[in-house]
Amino acid sequence: MDLPPPRASFASDNASGAHPDVLAALAAANEGHAPAYGGDAWTARALDAFRDLFGGEVEVAFCWGGTGANLVGLQCLLAPYDAVICPDTAHIHVDECGAPERFTGAKLLDVPTADGKLRPEHVTDQLHLLGDMHHVQPRVVAITQSTEQGSLYTPDEIAALTEVAHANGMRVHLDGARIANATAALGGDVRSFTVDAGVDVLTFGGTKNGMVHGEAVVFLDAELGRMAPFVRKQAGQLPSKMRFVAAQFEALLAGDLWLHNARHANEMAQLLAKRVDGAPGVTITRPPEVNAVFATIPPAALAPLQAWSHFYVWDETTTEVRWMTSFDTTADDVERFAAGVVSLVDQHAGL
Amino acid sequence: MDLPPPRASFASDNASGAHPDVLAALAAANEGHAPAYGGDAWTARALDAFRDLFGGEVEVAFCWGGTGANLVGLQCLLAPYDAVICPDTAHIHVDECGAPERFTGAKLLDVPTADGKLRPEHVTDQLHLLGDMHHVQPRVVAITQSTEQGSLYTPDEIAALTEVAHANGMRVHLDGARIANATAALGGDVRSFTVDAGVDVLTFGGTKNGMVHGEAVVFLDAELGRMAPFVRKQAGQLPSKMRFVAAQFEALLAGDLWLHNARHANEMAQLLAKRVDGAPGVTITRPPEVNAVFATIPPAALAPLQAWSHFYVWDETTTEVRWMTSFDTTADDVERFAAGVVSLVDQHAGL
Amino acid sequence: MDLPPPRASFASDNASGAHPDVLAALAAANEGHAPAYGGDAWTARALDAFRDLFGGEVEVAFCWGGTGANLVGLQCLLAPYDAVICPDTAHIHVDECGAPERFTGAKLLDVPTADGKLRPEHVTDQLHLLGDMHHVQPRVVAITQSTEQGSLYTPDEIAALTEVAHANGMRVHLDGARIANATAALGGDVRSFTVDAGVDVLTFGGTKNGMVHGEAVVFLDAELGRMAPFVRKQAGQLPSKMRFVAAQFEALLAGDLWLHNARHANEMAQLLAKRVDGAPGVTITRPPEVNAVFATIPPAALAPLQAWSHFYVWDETTTEVRWMTSFDTTADDVERFAAGVVSLVDQHAGL
Amino acid sequence: MDLPPPRASFASDNASGAHPDVLAALAAANEGHAPAYGGDAWTARALDAFRDLFGGEVEVAFCWGGTGANLVGLQCLLAPYDAVICPDTAHIHVDECGAPERFTGAKLLDVPTADGKLRPEHVTDQLHLLGDMHHVQPRVVAITQSTEQGSLYTPDEIAALTEVAHANGMRVHLDGARIANATAALGGDVRSFTVDAGVDVLTFGGTKNGMVHGEAVVFLDAELGRMAPFVRKQAGQLPSKMRFVAAQFEALLAGDLWLHNARHANEMAQLLAKRVDGAPGVTITRPPEVNAVFATIPPAALAPLQAWSHFYVWDETTTEVRWMTSFDTTADDVERFAAGVVSLVDQHAGL
Repeated sequence: MDLPPPRASFASDNASGAHPDVLAALAAANEGHAPAYGGDAWTARALDAFRDLFGGEVEVAFCWGGTGANLVGLQCLLAPYDAVICPDTAHIHVDECGAPERFTGAKLLDVPTADGKLRPEHVTDQLHLLGDMHHVQPRVVAITQSTEQGSLYTPDEIAALTEVAHANGMRVHLDGARIANATAALGGDVRSFTVDAGVDVLTFGGTKNGMVHGEAVVFLDAELGRMAPFVRKQAGQLPSKMRFVAAQFEALLAGDLWLHNARHANEMAQLLAKRVDGAPGVTITRPPEVNAVFATIPPAALAPLQAWSHFYVWDETTTEVRWMTSFDTTADDVERFAAGVVSLVDQHAGL
Repeated sequence: MDLPPPRASFASDNASGAHPDVLAALAAANEGHAPAYGGDAWTARALDAFRDLFGGEVEVAFCWGGTGANLVGLQCLLAPYDAVICPDTAHIHVDECGAPERFTGAKLLDVPTADGKLRPEHVTDQLHLLGDMHHVQPRVVAITQSTEQGSLYTPDEIAALTEVAHANGMRVHLDGARIANATAALGGDVRSFTVDAGVDVLTFGGTKNGMVHGEAVVFLDAELGRMAPFVRKQAGQLPSKMRFVAAQFEALLAGDLWLHNARHANEMAQLLAKRVDGAPGVTITRPPEVNAVFATIPPAALAPLQAWSHFYVWDETTTEVRWMTSFDTTADDVERFAAGVVSLVDQHAGL
Repeated sequence: MDLPPPRASFASDNASGAHPDVLAALAAANEGHAPAYGGDAWTARALDAFRDLFGGEVEVAFCWGGTGANLVGLQCLLAPYDAVICPDTAHIHVDECGAPERFTGAKLLDVPTADGKLRPEHVTDQLHLLGDMHHVQPRVVAITQSTEQGSLYTPDEIAALTEVAHANGMRVHLDGARIANATAALGGDVRSFTVDAGVDVLTFGGTKNGMVHGEAVVFLDAELGRMAPFVRKQAGQLPSKMRFVAAQFEALLAGDLWLHNARHANEMAQLLAKRVDGAPGVTITRPPEVNAVFATIPPAALAPLQAWSHFYVWDETTTEVRWMTSFDTTADDVERFAAGVVSLVDQHAGL
Repeated sequence: MDLPPPRASFASDNASGAHPDVLAALAAANEGHAPAYGGDAWTARALDAFRDLFGGEVEVAFCWGGTGANLVGLQCLLAPYDAVICPDTAHIHVDECGAPERFTGAKLLDVPTADGKLRPEHVTDQLHLLGDMHHVQPRVVAITQSTEQGSLYTPDEIAALTEVAHANGMRVHLDGARIANATAALGGDVRSFTVDAGVDVLTFGGTKNGMVHGEAVVFLDAELGRMAPFVRKQAGQLPSKMRFVAAQFEALLAGDLWLHNARHANEMAQLLAKRVDGAPGVTITRPPEVNAVFATIPPAALAPLQAWSHFYVWDETTTEVRWMTSFDTTADDVERFAAGVVSLVDQHAGL
């Protein structure tokens, strides 16, 4: 194709780098010596920022990455004979190379869903396992917000899940690798679908929203995080020079940069969907709610389009593809990418 | 005490921040989009730099932190019924909250040593376990270079260990969190005590030598690293935006900055030892070989000295303390810290 | 109900006790002292009997129970980042309280099947995971023969599975808790669907076929069993006084008692199906191939029938129940149980 | 040597078979069908017998073997970042192929002792680890009664250990593979050194005291055993036909057969020690308290003596050997074995 590819990748939101303010904060934290492992001033301030955000007495553990943060959060909720109920599209089930089972010993009970979202009946369907020693014991309901399929839970939907979970002795874990995109899409109130909806533990993503590295595990029920320091260390998730993670989070939360970044990424996805919708052979399969566009494209267009600007196929049987936008995806990137899509599907639509 | 404390901490070499060149390289890597998980140009170049350093076809896995790097390296060598022979002062035994056993399932057979260094007889002492199904099977000899006690193996000492290990079906793992300090102290030839001495796998520390974050696992026998990508992912040690780790390593290896940093830290330890030696009640317990000074001090001086400038006690029964220097410890820091030590032990020596 | 319940339970084949010949062999092994852990004459003879049965140089590890035997067999095939493809009705998936994941670290990829039987396409469907470090790596295809749903693989069906497995670097594990029932049903040639069909490792059930305790793991590829002694010990599956397990197996294999027992149990299931088929509201849902009868019954009859003679519900939504026969179930037991079923469904069919 | 070897082995107390009464009880339990997994009448009666023995509301879990019973008991007390303080001669440390670490994830902190017995200072020596996230957290004090070295704790010694353990948030686990020998040696009151001394969980050995198979985990603090059914199942330690384990325990506890057996074994050890003491080059190294005799013998006598009647060397450097007696070792066995020892050491003493 003659069109130059966009400067930005639509493969994933971790193809982007760091937001300039975040990078500046990291650099500014390189100031003299400071106690390692979290005994520094940046960490103290970042913890306060999280307490301001979620209220009250939450416990927070900064970790290296998303898989690691999920491990730390889940381990604090699970005995090895327990089970986690999750959608069969969950990152913990599909994309973490079995780390959750390996680390916790527990089993994932993955259930098929239409849209990556659990419903209360998915939980009640497993209740017959409770109390029978031959079966793992459902103890955690694990959801992702926004989901791996770009869908969103409403606060009420999450509250309905936590209600059935708590009523049956279970806890709710929310994988928030893209919690910022979800919050932005839901109007900006992160408490509405977390602490107010009864979620027990969540991860708060930094990497996909403009940080160099770093994720946070937030124990909304602080008691659940009591042993988190030991869990985190044993999981290999304790950042040595923690100030560099904390300083980035401080910058991300300051002035709601996290929401600003996420809102922009979401808008770019809306724009992309609008631009490619109606192109020959292209069907938007899910109205974009956050920063992902899912669409089916003509099979023959797939390879040349990937060669021009790489992205991932979501479902090979239907040639459904996933395009992700980032905090730094520009409107120009979107226009250029959309133009390439339109041009290539045009050539291949009838094939 | 009236003396102002030094700007630098002598508690640990991870109290320091990042070297300016390393930080600049990290910032420079924040350039547009790049494939995540290592498919970027920085990672390709950093891997080449490691191949230049160690020769041939080594496999390298960049990881988040030191404990994580040890987990990845060890896991590639161990079945769960295996055992690791290590000194009872090893970081993997004492300071990793049981992560190695937890992750690998294997057992650490820790042996007391005079100076943190294993000898061949420590290995042969365990050979009676081989082949008996009631006992874990010694499979890895794990050493640290430089050791947690600030001592150094000569290349010949390591070669003697690898020889007895290999002759008995074992592999040798070298924890190189401070491999730069060791290399500098041994004259600058890192191959002499690693690949040339028969070491199979090592970790190459970045964090304690001027990086924001990042460690490398180097499989000198590349075949041992064949499954490392899966092990690393399952261990939660796969950096998402890997370019930021790689760019730092690239800067650290370029122009031998890693050796420059380490040599300086080592010299500061020498200076500190010289300055405090002979102070009342102070005895240097081990001639400093790298960037650590171990000394016994008057018990009554301990608390006030720690209150003035924090550091760790190594042995409470003898009031042996450990002072660490870093790549950015200045001569002025040393002079100021030594002055404080001399002043306080002077006050407390007779007590 | 006025009818006396049968002497035998139709709940499970482990409700039965031991065959008299097996018990006599166990008692006869109580003769003086003998080396523990398998160094005795009974174990040597029982191993020979297994080699006679499967041919050549198979390795055999006697274990305590069925879950334990599965653990030992699977562990010898798996690294912790690997995966096991199995039906979602597999005992290892449903009934072992997560022990396989806990012990091996690997993940079970469970797939829905119509009848408890894997087909080659279930394996090929997972091949896209191979080589991608974000995903567990399919390494074992796990089947049960006869299955938990009472169905049977033909030798050709198993050969087709092993072919696709081996072609893709996987191994095949056969859970043979009821291998005797399968062998009897298939005409008596156990090699036809195991060693001749390319199976790599199987468990050979003793408990459900007339033993007090004991299962065997048979490594048809002996090399795979090389480390089994260590795996077994670490799994807590090494019988201390192993002669008592071995003597029972010796008796079970002698004169084909294992096949005699299984054939009888199978026949009793046929008889039961014949007797209840056609009763009001009773539908045999699967023609009984081994020692299990699956039938739907009138919902209202379930509770009184269970109260009269306990058994398990297989599917609550359809009131499908499972009735198991044993080596010692008598025709009189069957007639009496069938009479009770007929009588009770008759009373409740219209409700 | 011309002397015929004894009928009994002095290698280990699991070289013996089953006591006739125990075997008869096992055979008598082979009566019709009974619910599996413990829902039978024999299990109910055996549980009652344990409650009679230990008082009150203890929870009991019957398991397959000694290693498995230790796994179940320990797992109920441990999180994976915890640690177990034990003597470096403990069975869990030396003889279980790393199963405790593998299963629980926790670390064993093994300490050298003079006689296989922990003292309170061994516990207090580890208290500095508490609360520091870099270190495993001491949570269990694990003792063996009688110990692997044939020594005995007095009730007061155990009470002193439980006191320091409980005062520091730890629990006490007692490996009672030979609890019968200990009880017999201490005068018959098993409560005196267990429930009355504050022990939290113990294993109660059956195999080494006349059973075919079977060990019991006794949760003296019943709350600790609440999840034991799940732990046991996941550990592969749930006996399917549990009545056969339970019936044996019922027979063993009835009429104090367990104490009778143990007392006899202890007496045979006393007799053996008396007979060989004073033979040329033979020194009894520890006065036999239970059913083990430890002695140094002339090095040159070792091989011929083992060839004549096998036993184990305890310490190769001093040619200290271990001779074990069993419930069924006869005085004639002892006399014959002692005669052989005396004869052979006589020949080799001067060499």
